[in-house]
Amino acid sequence: MFLPERILQEKLRKFLEEDLGQGDLTTFLTIPKDVVVDAEVVAKERGLVAGVEEALALCGSLSLQAKALVSEASAVEPGTCILRIAGDGRTLLSTERILLNLLSRMSGVATLTSRLVGRIEVAGYKTRLACTRKGAVGLAYFDKKAAFLGGGDTHRLHLDDMILIKDNHLKIVGSVETAVKKARAAASFSKKIEVEVTSIEDALAAAKANADIVMLDNFSPNEIRKTVASLEEEGVRRKVLLEASGGITEENVLEYAATDVDIVSIGEITHSVKALDVSLEVVKVTR
Amino acid sequence: MFLPERILQEKLRKFLEEDLGQGDLTTFLTIPKDVVVDAEVVAKERGLVAGVEEALALCGSLSLQAKALVSEASAVEPGTCILRIAGDGRTLLSTERILLNLLSRMSGVATLTSRLVGRIEVAGYKTRLACTRKGAVGLAYFDKKAAFLGGGDTHRLHLDDMILIKDNHLKIVGSVETAVKKARAAASFSKKIEVEVTSIEDALAAAKANADIVMLDNFSPNEIRKTVASLEEEGVRRKVLLEASGGITEENVLEYAATDVDIVSIGEITHSVKALDVSLEVVKVTR
Amino acid sequence: MFLPERILQEKLRKFLEEDLGQGDLTTFLTIPKDVVVDAEVVAKERGLVAGVEEALALCGSLSLQAKALVSEASAVEPGTCILRIAGDGRTLLSTERILLNLLSRMSGVATLTSRLVGRIEVAGYKTRLACTRKGAVGLAYFDKKAAFLGGGDTHRLHLDDMILIKDNHLKIVGSVETAVKKARAAASFSKKIEVEVTSIEDALAAAKANADIVMLDNFSPNEIRKTVASLEEEGVRRKVLLEASGGITEENVLEYAATDVDIVSIGEITHSVKALDVSLEVVKVTR
Amino acid sequence: MFLPERILQEKLRKFLEEDLGQGDLTTFLTIPKDVVVDAEVVAKERGLVAGVEEALALCGSLSLQAKALVSEASAVEPGTCILRIAGDGRTLLSTERILLNLLSRMSGVATLTSRLVGRIEVAGYKTRLACTRKGAVGLAYFDKKAAFLGGGDTHRLHLDDMILIKDNHLKIVGSVETAVKKARAAASFSKKIEVEVTSIEDALAAAKANADIVMLDNFSPNEIRKTVASLEEEGVRRKVLLEASGGITEENVLEYAATDVDIVSIGEITHSVKALDVSLEVVKVTR
Amino acid sequence: MFLPERILQEKLRKFLEEDLGQGDLTTFLTIPKDVVVDAEVVAKERGLVAGVEEALALCGSLSLQAKALVSEASAVEPGTCILRIAGDGRTLLSTERILLNLLSRMSGVATLTSRLVGRIEVAGYKTRLACTRKGAVGLAYFDKKAAFLGGGDTHRLHLDDMILIKDNHLKIVGSVETAVKKARAAASFSKKIEVEVTSIEDALAAAKANADIVMLDNFSPNEIRKTVASLEEEGVRRKVLLEASGGITEENVLEYAATDVDIVSIGEITHSVKALDVSLEVVKVTR
Amino acid sequence: MFLPERILQEKLRKFLEEDLGQGDLTTFLTIPKDVVVDAEVVAKERGLVAGVEEALALCGSLSLQAKALVSEASAVEPGTCILRIAGDGRTLLSTERILLNLLSRMSGVATLTSRLVGRIEVAGYKTRLACTRKGAVGLAYFDKKAAFLGGGDTHRLHLDDMILIKDNHLKIVGSVETAVKKARAAASFSKKIEVEVTSIEDALAAAKANADIVMLDNFSPNEIRKTVASLEEEGVRRKVLLEASGGITEENVLEYAATDVDIVSIGEITHSVKALDVSLEVVKVTR
Repeated sequence: MFLPERILQEKLRKFLEEDLGQGDLTTFLTIPKDVVVDAEVVAKERGLVAGVEEALALCGSLSLQAKALVSEASAVEPGTCILRIAGDGRTLLSTERILLNLLSRMSGVATLTSRLVGRIEVAGYKTRLACTRKGAVGLAYFDKKAAFLGGGDTHRLHLDDMILIKDNHLKIVGSVETAVKKARAAASFSKKIEVEVTSIEDALAAAKANADIVMLDNFSPNEIRKTVASLEEEGVRRKVLLEASGGITEENVLEYAATDVDIVSIGEITHSVKALDVSLEVVKVTR
Repeated sequence: MFLPERILQEKLRKFLEEDLGQGDLTTFLTIPKDVVVDAEVVAKERGLVAGVEEALALCGSLSLQAKALVSEASAVEPGTCILRIAGDGRTLLSTERILLNLLSRMSGVATLTSRLVGRIEVAGYKTRLACTRKGAVGLAYFDKKAAFLGGGDTHRLHLDDMILIKDNHLKIVGSVETAVKKARAAASFSKKIEVEVTSIEDALAAAKANADIVMLDNFSPNEIRKTVASLEEEGVRRKVLLEASGGITEENVLEYAATDVDIVSIGEITHSVKALDVSLEVVKVTR
Repeated sequence: MFLPERILQEKLRKFLEEDLGQGDLTTFLTIPKDVVVDAEVVAKERGLVAGVEEALALCGSLSLQAKALVSEASAVEPGTCILRIAGDGRTLLSTERILLNLLSRMSGVATLTSRLVGRIEVAGYKTRLACTRKGAVGLAYFDKKAAFLGGGDTHRLHLDDMILIKDNHLKIVGSVETAVKKARAAASFSKKIEVEVTSIEDALAAAKANADIVMLDNFSPNEIRKTVASLEEEGVRRKVLLEASGGITEENVLEYAATDVDIVSIGEITHSVKALDVSLEVVKVTR
Repeated sequence: MFLPERILQEKLRKFLEEDLGQGDLTTFLTIPKDVVVDAEVVAKERGLVAGVEEALALCGSLSLQAKALVSEASAVEPGTCILRIAGDGRTLLSTERILLNLLSRMSGVATLTSRLVGRIEVAGYKTRLACTRKGAVGLAYFDKKAAFLGGGDTHRLHLDDMILIKDNHLKIVGSVETAVKKARAAASFSKKIEVEVTSIEDALAAAKANADIVMLDNFSPNEIRKTVASLEEEGVRRKVLLEASGGITEENVLEYAATDVDIVSIGEITHSVKALDVSLEVVKVTR
Repeated sequence: MFLPERILQEKLRKFLEEDLGQGDLTTFLTIPKDVVVDAEVVAKERGLVAGVEEALALCGSLSLQAKALVSEASAVEPGTCILRIAGDGRTLLSTERILLNLLSRMSGVATLTSRLVGRIEVAGYKTRLACTRKGAVGLAYFDKKAAFLGGGDTHRLHLDDMILIKDNHLKIVGSVETAVKKARAAASFSKKIEVEVTSIEDALAAAKANADIVMLDNFSPNEIRKTVASLEEEGVRRKVLLEASGGITEENVLEYAATDVDIVSIGEITHSVKALDVSLEVVKVTR
Repeated sequence: MFLPERILQEKLRKFLEEDLGQGDLTTFLTIPKDVVVDAEVVAKERGLVAGVEEALALCGSLSLQAKALVSEASAVEPGTCILRIAGDGRTLLSTERILLNLLSRMSGVATLTSRLVGRIEVAGYKTRLACTRKGAVGLAYFDKKAAFLGGGDTHRLHLDDMILIKDNHLKIVGSVETAVKKARAAASFSKKIEVEVTSIEDALAAAKANADIVMLDNFSPNEIRKTVASLEEEGVRRKVLLEASGGITEENVLEYAATDVDIVSIGEITHSVKALDVSLEVVKVTR
């Protein structure tokens, strides 16, 4: 998910443009033209910071000098200074909110992802934690990158990067076999094929039809174990990756990790983000 | 916040474009061209639905026939059917996720807002609940509208619609009096002027300098009461609206409402949205 | 109406792009690649210059070195040098017309506004002069800013920054009371509410319904005086601001200012702009 | 200057988007959802209407039914109904101002152009009246089209459609001969070459160097006559078109037309537009 | 690569906008407003037609009625009528060239792809023919889709849909092992990893490091055979897909297909497209 | 076709954005953040290089230091180093393909154009070689500029820069005379008028109706000679330029040049581009 800085800056400036409307009136009417300010972006609570690269890019794009005091994906405590920014006072005050909104959302995503990933690791499981395409519209790049920084797997970035046959596709196509075969026949060799199933039978059918990944949708940990057993019995367990999805939360994630599933995916990471509290404080004013 | 449908549709299609990338591969490879489907969007949990207008606009924009079964801002239960959609199967499957992401976020915002507003009303207070500019970048229109539908006050929509002098402005300008006077001298008669204060003295200064609204930043309920008393003593309480902001949450909101403050504003409504669970199910396939 | 320079530059470059089409042929075919030129932007007639910030931003955006010799909103005479620009000859010649068009329009707006404001001040009135939303499509930011620089009030910047209930709204809603009450009940505390009235009765109704501003549409100075008298009689004169609008021109503006109205608004300032004559002259060529 | 309707509509909607910001608050808060209105766009003063096609396109783009009662480029009197529009009340009220701004500017351009063209024709001259590239930034399509509808010549539409060597080009290139030859050597056969001159000598040089058009910049009518005489003497008068430009106004245009010049061009037509007064009135409300 | 029609239409209209500039002058000046025409798009040479869906979408987007007479990806002969189009004459004439340019390029890509794929099939090989990312900038969607319609494999659609470690990456990272391991450790489970190698040793290293696909860059058919033998010897041949790339052309493609390589990729398909000759003829004019 | 560098860069970055999608995964996962690389862009085959300015602009836009080792439109041999580029490794690797695609297409256009123009010159003819509007959608600026650099004539850049009445216009208008007269009556003096004819009679009619250019569509060299003779007989040969178009290829272009035609135009130059092989090699890595 590398974007050259200038491309990233254009994405970021669109958010700023929307917030500015016809311009920042408060700054226009109260802040003189020649003021230079120094400011600090400070964490107000504990978490994992993400979006430092984006914050630096946004500042750079507006000729604000910014320096990161912590590196991307580091743990912060209340009071940790994340960035120092210096530059035109009017520009900085007009940008403050967008900068903080970006950092606090990305850090929120990374913090939760990292906490969940940490639990799985501490418990000694190898299960990978992935996010989904559930989230705030228009923000996939930021949310996926933050999840990655928190140690999560980005899963699909959008609709063109993997074939993922879901329940509604199956309702139209008819069977798992037909769907996987259709996809396999026409898909580029460069893509993987995943299929979402709701029964052990379909999990078996998917594995036999040469799906690369089988998503076990709303399976209980027990059902997952049974499915794994069946797949092993039929000698197809190692042909596929297994992803558990649906109903997995911070509370029960370890029960899922305890099964032999390869991936657990959790929508909450990106659709119900708790922003990390960060604030910006002007620390010096030079006229 | 009325947008003609065509203007709204263009906003919405941008989200879809981002999710599509070079196109939906799964749908392309598995779903035949001539299939017409009927589908339902169903709530999976209790909440207040918001975004129905947006969902209808998005469908209409893609030639999908959609009908709302509940009106905007109505309460839904698990199983409540929100929308019926019929049309081209490929188009519907490619749009499903964006449609649901939009509805679930907006409904999440509305649900929390409405719960908080309800508490204040039930407790018999007149305090207005407002959101802030904290939130997901780029989504102000949707988040503010959802907060409105939940009974909240949108506060500023962006940086051009009110003068709001904050802590960092004051650090540059020097004093509340100077800042308010500067703004008052140059601001259009069509704008209100609000100033954020951190002490009773500044609250008095703001009111005397003819601010329209005084934001009491991080005041405890007790400090608010003292401030109100001082303002009354000086005969300026009714000249201004008072907004309490900072540290207000679902847990303590009633304590704030119990003071004589006019508005309480809560960032959480838009920056830490818990998405409402909604899903789309194909219910009929016609070839 | 402060925009960070980079955001402003993007607005400005769109105008340039439109003028360039597939590229400037004359410059391409006649001007060598390595020529550096010095040029001056000079006023050809008396007026108030506006758009200096925009001109500097446009030049900066194209790597042209530009320096303002007069400050924004200063009076210029024929021959006054406004800007000195140095840089790549091809770039400068391709940009000349857009640069001048911008400066001459903004200066035209500022010049007329300032002349009208000056008359009102000289005559000793406190009445504020405002512009309207009548003007060239797409240019509100520039026209409103120029009017501000000329001493005028920007009035609404667009449709989201104040509630202004006009004649056509009233035809649908029915009465001034209903309209103002509907708006008041649902509007954010951060917005003012203005209502346009065509009779003394409605002016009274608006004031009593708690409108913040009452626009007296096409009232003669005499009718305004009668309205003021009625409002005073009913004790509501100081509850509202009064704006006179419709049929006010350079010729009669003092007659309106002579009433007790708070604001007079004049469409001509932005819808019938007389451009200020400015030109660009290359003064030095370096190879 | 034909644009397919859909392409034109996209241009127009951008103006609307800018005016809407985050949405029309007044309409949102006061106008119910299901109201259908009939409205009329009426001229308030005498002039030549232009922009009917654009107005219809804008309405059509928003699902408003619109019908023109007069054809493009017809003369209107105060009270003439130009358009009837029917449709969603909220949409119409949100669009009213942009629609009127467009019509009133385009009609203003056409009205002045047509008056000047009329004078030249009545006086019996064949001189063509052209506009320039001076005008409101971003509006060339609309201004040029309006000038065309008023009987004027559009001149260059932007920088890629003709070679026009101006004073500043000449300062860099050195001489008229060199500049025209350079351009002629490399220009596509599909383009004409015009050169701006400030002396009779240069006019001769331009004609001899095979320019297609010679622009006599700031020549008095008398100087033009002398130039024509010289060109005739040298046998090159009919090789070129002659355009008089600079300092030509409504007052003196006939003096210029009376010379043998082929074209007179006037910046005022597009840079100092006097908007034609038009208004929109709701005439029927259906719930 | 399915795009909802409205999304596709927006892509297509951008091409049209660029071609129109300030509008189609010829059509504006010569074609009356009310003319309806019927036209046919006809192949002038033998080939495989591609872009029918795009052509229909473009027409639909402009309110032109269009009907395909042959289906996407069918063989056409000189004279075969591909589309019938009816509608506004001005719109059709303004769109003709973009419509034809699109069809002729996409058909050109499909024709060559299909011819190459056909040869491989006729010769009895199972090798898949893929395109590369070499091609006209900005047209990946159209070129890849046309290659798919011609029976080819689209390979990567852009830089986010597979990991493909190329020579220049290896120069920075150092070794194939390190590069593949780095990628494998951090890549989403949803992505495949391909690595480009220039020696048998590196091909082995790649397979052992668990690359999914190994690209044999500029290997001769003989070198490919040796590589396959080595991979088999080491027991890793079936762990990877093998792609031959570099220097493969229509002339030698069968020699490559004759090796045990899984995929051959050819840049020529998209970077050196020979357009298929198609033309549009107006067949009926109705006033 | 001069575009200020910043405007050109924005065009170029759009191509890059499309190729990046949600970001370059390979680079993100394998290339460290602090690596600086030096690279060379090298020709792999003989040709005429075009697009150097575009390549430099793209690099500059991304803060990559680039230096051209050969000038625009110079001949290159296999191994000629065209550009040296130094800068951030991640940025360079993400941009490599778009940079090469641009250079190889533009150089391909220039190479063929130059070869054809060279043949005509060597054979001693004065005929000008022009391209057409046939080509890849969206790339007119680049294709036309490359043809210009190869010594060709750009012909129309888009639909607004000349009047060109084609067969389908004539089918609607009726006759060459009517069409040319309609156009002449309303066209700006700044535009030329060309008309496409299919018979000697129409060529005569066009010349007599004062067309500036007559396009002889699908005339054999013999038919062209006869047409020229007829035009001379009627004394109108020198009133018009003659353009031969249709069926002209590399093979037969000299036969056309041997007639007295002024221009031959060839679609192949831009619609069937053979890309010039160029590659980028990292030559130094600095950590």
